[in-house]
Amino acid sequence: MKTVPERIAAFRSAMEKAGCDIFIMPSSDPHSSEYAPAHETAWEYFSGFSCENANLLITRSEAALWVDGRFFGAADKALAGTGVQSMHMGVKGVPSVLAWLGVRLKEGSVLGYNAETMPLHNMRQLKEVCDSCGAKLVDLPLVDEVWVEDRAPLPSTPAWILGKEYAGMEASEKLAVLRDKLKALNCTAELVTKLDCLAWLLNLRASDVDCTPYALAFCYVDMDKAVLFMDYSRLSDDAKAYLSACGVELRGYKEMPAFLAENTKSETVLIDPASLNASLNNALHSNSAFTVVEGSDPLAMLKAVKNETELECTRKAHIYDASAMVRFQIELEKRMAAGEKLRETDIDSILHKYRSANPGFIVESFPTIAAYGPNAANMHYAPKAGSDAELQPKGYLLVDSGATYYTGTTDITRTYTLGELSYEEKLAYTRVLRCHIDVAMAVWKEGATGGELDMLARQPMWRHMLDYRCGTGHSVSHVGAVHEGPHSLRPHNGVAFVPGMIITNEPGIYEEGSIGIRIENELECVEAGESEYGKFLRFEPITFVPVEMSSVLVEELTREEKDWINHYHAQVFEKISPLLNAEETEWLKNKCAAV
Amino acid sequence: MKTVPERIAAFRSAMEKAGCDIFIMPSSDPHSSEYAPAHETAWEYFSGFSCENANLLITRSEAALWVDGRFFGAADKALAGTGVQSMHMGVKGVPSVLAWLGVRLKEGSVLGYNAETMPLHNMRQLKEVCDSCGAKLVDLPLVDEVWVEDRAPLPSTPAWILGKEYAGMEASEKLAVLRDKLKALNCTAELVTKLDCLAWLLNLRASDVDCTPYALAFCYVDMDKAVLFMDYSRLSDDAKAYLSACGVELRGYKEMPAFLAENTKSETVLIDPASLNASLNNALHSNSAFTVVEGSDPLAMLKAVKNETELECTRKAHIYDASAMVRFQIELEKRMAAGEKLRETDIDSILHKYRSANPGFIVESFPTIAAYGPNAANMHYAPKAGSDAELQPKGYLLVDSGATYYTGTTDITRTYTLGELSYEEKLAYTRVLRCHIDVAMAVWKEGATGGELDMLARQPMWRHMLDYRCGTGHSVSHVGAVHEGPHSLRPHNGVAFVPGMIITNEPGIYEEGSIGIRIENELECVEAGESEYGKFLRFEPITFVPVEMSSVLVEELTREEKDWINHYHAQVFEKISPLLNAEETEWLKNKCAAV
Repeated sequence: MKTVPERIAAFRSAMEKAGCDIFIMPSSDPHSSEYAPAHETAWEYFSGFSCENANLLITRSEAALWVDGRFFGAADKALAGTGVQSMHMGVKGVPSVLAWLGVRLKEGSVLGYNAETMPLHNMRQLKEVCDSCGAKLVDLPLVDEVWVEDRAPLPSTPAWILGKEYAGMEASEKLAVLRDKLKALNCTAELVTKLDCLAWLLNLRASDVDCTPYALAFCYVDMDKAVLFMDYSRLSDDAKAYLSACGVELRGYKEMPAFLAENTKSETVLIDPASLNASLNNALHSNSAFTVVEGSDPLAMLKAVKNETELECTRKAHIYDASAMVRFQIELEKRMAAGEKLRETDIDSILHKYRSANPGFIVESFPTIAAYGPNAANMHYAPKAGSDAELQPKGYLLVDSGATYYTGTTDITRTYTLGELSYEEKLAYTRVLRCHIDVAMAVWKEGATGGELDMLARQPMWRHMLDYRCGTGHSVSHVGAVHEGPHSLRPHNGVAFVPGMIITNEPGIYEEGSIGIRIENELECVEAGESEYGKFLRFEPITFVPVEMSSVLVEELTREEKDWINHYHAQVFEKISPLLNAEETEWLKNKCAAV
Repeated sequence: MKTVPERIAAFRSAMEKAGCDIFIMPSSDPHSSEYAPAHETAWEYFSGFSCENANLLITRSEAALWVDGRFFGAADKALAGTGVQSMHMGVKGVPSVLAWLGVRLKEGSVLGYNAETMPLHNMRQLKEVCDSCGAKLVDLPLVDEVWVEDRAPLPSTPAWILGKEYAGMEASEKLAVLRDKLKALNCTAELVTKLDCLAWLLNLRASDVDCTPYALAFCYVDMDKAVLFMDYSRLSDDAKAYLSACGVELRGYKEMPAFLAENTKSETVLIDPASLNASLNNALHSNSAFTVVEGSDPLAMLKAVKNETELECTRKAHIYDASAMVRFQIELEKRMAAGEKLRETDIDSILHKYRSANPGFIVESFPTIAAYGPNAANMHYAPKAGSDAELQPKGYLLVDSGATYYTGTTDITRTYTLGELSYEEKLAYTRVLRCHIDVAMAVWKEGATGGELDMLARQPMWRHMLDYRCGTGHSVSHVGAVHEGPHSLRPHNGVAFVPGMIITNEPGIYEEGSIGIRIENELECVEAGESEYGKFLRFEPITFVPVEMSSVLVEELTREEKDWINHYHAQVFEKISPLLNAEETEWLKNKCAAV
């Protein structure tokens, strides 16, 4: 395997030959995925650092990787000595990618990019900077040219159809709903290119991306038909028959550009510039039969507001998942008490043992984050065998994990007390818990947005000028990706919550080199009722796992917060104890005791 | 004086002659003022009901007045039997003005309006509805034709210049800042037509509108000069000289259209379609020398972020104002204790006695709201001699009042306990206080908007599916209007708070027929400090008047809320007692005792 400097040197040679001055690699793939298949992770290969939401820029003499707050510490460490600079996104004094380009691009400079992995919206921003500098933005195949060895092939895992008993609607019904939405937008067709939207639309699943049960595919939907572009050899005959009955035709993964070129029928096609890749956009504009309309993908909202079947299934998934979490914690406590030397990587093994025994288990929904002590300050810490920490009988162990079952996808974090805690450690934990509860018990008048609700989460932090450098919560796809939009609990998010939406509630404290604490449940948005003042909404937890209370400074909680946690723990006991044996039930009773 | 039905009948005759099917009268004036001079209040004259933020619509057979939540109860009462329907804005099942028009306008219908009092933005919405119905929108002078008797003349009160010691900047400096802002927007001129913006820009004050120290005027500002359109005969020689030295030319109030027609120089003029009246917009578009650019008026933000002098002066105004509030309450308590029969209208007299004795007093900043018992459910209740309630030794008296001094404008509400209270009355008061405190002690990361902060205010209400049908708070102009934009504490307001902004914090409970409670302070946005997580902001109260605590269920407050109120009362005592005599000081000490 080449070293990072060797990889970058090879890339610079290719840049020189192509007359390219700067090359940009975003953390994207042809589907604007958050988690790309290994085949597309050029920014990771050339920087040597694994992360999402990043941008790697390479000039003839510099290289710099922009990472978000979750990765600051880890990137600093990993990039040290590689010649790649670690750039902290959004931090005062650190230029944005566009600003950094603005001072480096000159009249006549060439900024290279790969149109297939660049969302249209981002391509336009780059074009604007290039225009203002007199530079050229050029689609160059340098990644494919240089990155040949050590590169994973395009994935092609078995693909299957999620049954209506789990999905709530047949693909044919969903296509009909989508067509109605398109008509309302005066469109006759749409390019569906995001994997989560496509998976929802066609009830299609596979395992092309680690921990994310999707198939690499594109779809073209018009009023009469849908054309699915994927390696369809991996579909069972039943799945093929199902899709065919839904009016879905099959073509190869790479055939969409050719298909678009062939079309002669006049169509008004909806595209979402935030996710459509620049290459497909070019293909579309090359055929004058298409009138292109840009807008948000209506599938995002259709998918985000779960139907009754999806909700019921998901609630079941969480009950099973909680029983695994309970058994995991009992084993952890026992083995720690017995003085056994456990390491961070053991956590995933224990969790996997219990989760995989649950009915309908498919896969973990993301790589388990098991972070002991200061390691937890890295929000997305991934322990590695050999370098992982040994658990000591003191401080905190943060475990963020989840699974996808046929019934749904889960995401949960608990921060376990392994022994002695300082006052500061307890205070930090208590503040995180207060943030968590203040969101969980929110009630709001219909129309309130994620940005407005996020304000509630952060008050217990902000009053002490503390914060966490990430959203408070994200949506979770149904039997799908663990992160989805469009709603989120995050400053300035403008999407109003609607009953049936699911959101994680995961405030935290992360102090580099010392501590990391996070408490995460999933919440469902439900109706609270109606009064003369209008309709009110609230959240109902769907995660039912005890929250460690021995590390809480109870006197810091308000009465309402105490009432909330007591009510929550009563629910946990009621819902999870039926799945447990007598010893486990006794353990749970203790953990759920009222404060 | 004609009755309301007589006035409407006369108006309908004029409509018939003009071929007009429906006529719309918004609560506006040529300056899009919230409070119009009496001369322009056609919607009040023809409906017989006084209010802001309204729309009166008259057809040949129907009449309907749209009012907002503050006026629901009062409008229902006042309009009963007049033939004018009371329409509750924003309530489910009540059509909006535009929806109501949509079902009444037919192919060929004529919707009449007065372009001089119709903001461009609203005119466009009307035009859109007319277009969709095949109706015509026609500028008709029917109001001037019908409303001749009982109509106040255009006001022309003495006008004067607010000195730099109060304003912080000379008009010439403000003009220079505005010109810089215009340049940054690629504009060379602006029409300044909002009275508050104009008053701020030129340090010009008068008393043309009740309780609002402004002069009716328009201003045209380009890179070389400013032209002020007003009845300038009322300016002193000093004021004229001041304006002249600032490069301001004077013309008559009605001469702007002629001035715009005369212009031959090519100018790119900024207008704000939210406030420019449709008539001036026509005048501008009739002259091809003008290129019109639409955008927000930069003066709104310049004015809303107070300078150091404005802030210092305002803080002083509030200290004096608080001493008057304290003396008022002492007198109220004494006279009630002596068994005196006081009425609601007495409240303003007592307040005026103390306020007007303060240095630099100019005028009340709005008509005092003194509402006893159920009358307080009407947020903008105006007691009238003869029909006002007598105060009883039980329940609540809500007093919302304020004054404009040379140093600043104040706005404060206290809800006084006159005697016995039920548990429900105490609970309601406690909830309002919690809302108030939760905003007052907010800390947030730079960038948070008024909509996001509003969420904090309403949680103690929303958790019980209660609400108040108004914003939580508004900005206050410096020596000016008691309401100003662009920031506010209100759901979905998107303006980020900036140090130097002032905002009222006035949550309330209003239950028709039973109760009205409001607690209002003014707050200044200040820096809270900076940490590794960024810059944090918070509020600092500038109103220092004790909050009645005998009506609070103290056990319902959180520890943080108790700490806040104790700290606040300590500040009140420290800041106000130096202005009081020994007896008053003793009284204040009691009121400020820690809970």
